[in-house]
Amino acid sequence: MTIEIDHPETRAELQAAFMRYETALVENDVAVLDELFLVAPTTIRYGGGENLYGYAEIAAFRSARSPAGLARRLDRTVITTYGRDFGVASTLFYRDSAPGKVGRQMQTWVKTVAGWRVAAAHVSIIPDPAGGEKT
Amino acid sequence: MTIEIDHPETRAELQAAFMRYETALVENDVAVLDELFLVAPTTIRYGGGENLYGYAEIAAFRSARSPAGLARRLDRTVITTYGRDFGVASTLFYRDSAPGKVGRQMQTWVKTVAGWRVAAAHVSIIPDPAGGEKT
Repeated sequence: MTIEIDHPETRAELQAAFMRYETALVENDVAVLDELFLVAPTTIRYGGGENLYGYAEIAAFRSARSPAGLARRLDRTVITTYGRDFGVASTLFYRDSAPGKVGRQMQTWVKTVAGWRVAAAHVSIIPDPAGGEKT
Repeated sequence: MTIEIDHPETRAELQAAFMRYETALVENDVAVLDELFLVAPTTIRYGGGENLYGYAEIAAFRSARSPAGLARRLDRTVITTYGRDFGVASTLFYRDSAPGKVGRQMQTWVKTVAGWRVAAAHVSIIPDPAGGEKT
């Protein structure tokens, strides 16, 4: 098939879901974070220091996570949809607690009957190859 | 819609594409690596030490990459399809040159008229939280 990239309404939906996730993340709103991940054994989250396979491992990680120091600034966020039910959200992020480093977050979202859900996510932090945050 | 997860024929197609990519990676077959990424400005690859936005940046990185030391072993590879045209391939990997560390590779694939293509990828390497490779 020919994939429709960035159908406007679909992309707007995913943008809203992404922003809802971001707010929940920095507020450590575990209920919303849990809601937004796809409840499936195939859901995977590679985190900054852990590899989580399946929804249950991800939810256990959330419930045990310290709520301190989660505030961050996003940069170069790109949200792209493919068709009407699938998309990817990629963003860099910076934290005051980690000068000189850049975080990368990539999420694959699928649209279910209940709404958009993260089916796969990968977060990592590296020395900033761009030499620091643009201000 | 209700998403069909892991439709057998679709998943088999993506498995074959994933293995073709893996072979090309360890052999540094740049032509095949370039072929398997979606030619679009929205294609993103977060690598071990670089953040690449758009197909052109990714291709430039490939052409400049050293072919040395790319051999690796995969572990806990999970390939999951959503519907008939989308999927995610996630795997851990280990290299002899990086003892005590684990790589994580996550790719989002879309099926185009030309075949399966990577629309987004994220590779990172961390200290192995599992305490080392199982042998």
